[in-house]
Amino acid sequence: MHIHEFQEMMRYLYIHRDSDRGLKGTYDWLVEEVEELGEALKGEDNEATQREFADVIAWLASLANIVGIDLEKAAIEKYRNVCPKCEKAPCQCEF
Amino acid sequence: MHIHEFQEMMRYLYIHRDSDRGLKGTYDWLVEEVEELGEALKGEDNEATQREFADVIAWLASLANIVGIDLEKAAIEKYRNVCPKCEKAPCQCEF
Repeated sequence: MHIHEFQEMMRYLYIHRDSDRGLKGTYDWLVEEVEELGEALKGEDNEATQREFADVIAWLASLANIVGIDLEKAAIEKYRNVCPKCEKAPCQCEF
Repeated sequence: MHIHEFQEMMRYLYIHRDSDRGLKGTYDWLVEEVEELGEALKGEDNEATQREFADVIAWLASLANIVGIDLEKAAIEKYRNVCPKCEKAPCQCEF
């Protein structure tokens, strides 16, 4: 599934709720989902961890819908098969 | 671009660094990127916000690479064109 398609599915399923909740409420929910992912990563339940990854990308897509940003376009524009910092593939940045 | 393809691009570009950094370091970096997205959302620079969305999905993909989870499979398994809670489309959950 394309990133854009996933975002459109989220729009169809949730835009009415996302709009009502608004930008700050949706961002706060994304933060909560990232925290839940962090908790799941400490355990050994791979299926639970998988569901938390799904929730994070879902809320990220919802947030992008609220502000009218195309997540796929954003991702491709920044990461064009090379590291955006060193412009090499694989990344050869020196840290 | 498929979610899976984006994750594979991240693997090609960054798996050597992600593996060295490890799970906790990569998760902490994801959290930082989410915070930077939050800051960008308070401003009016749409291009900067777009770049922060790109970074969050990139670090989420890197984190999924470290733990061997397919982000696209995770997303599709949980969100199958209906809300996973109420099983309706659009979502009709009562909160």
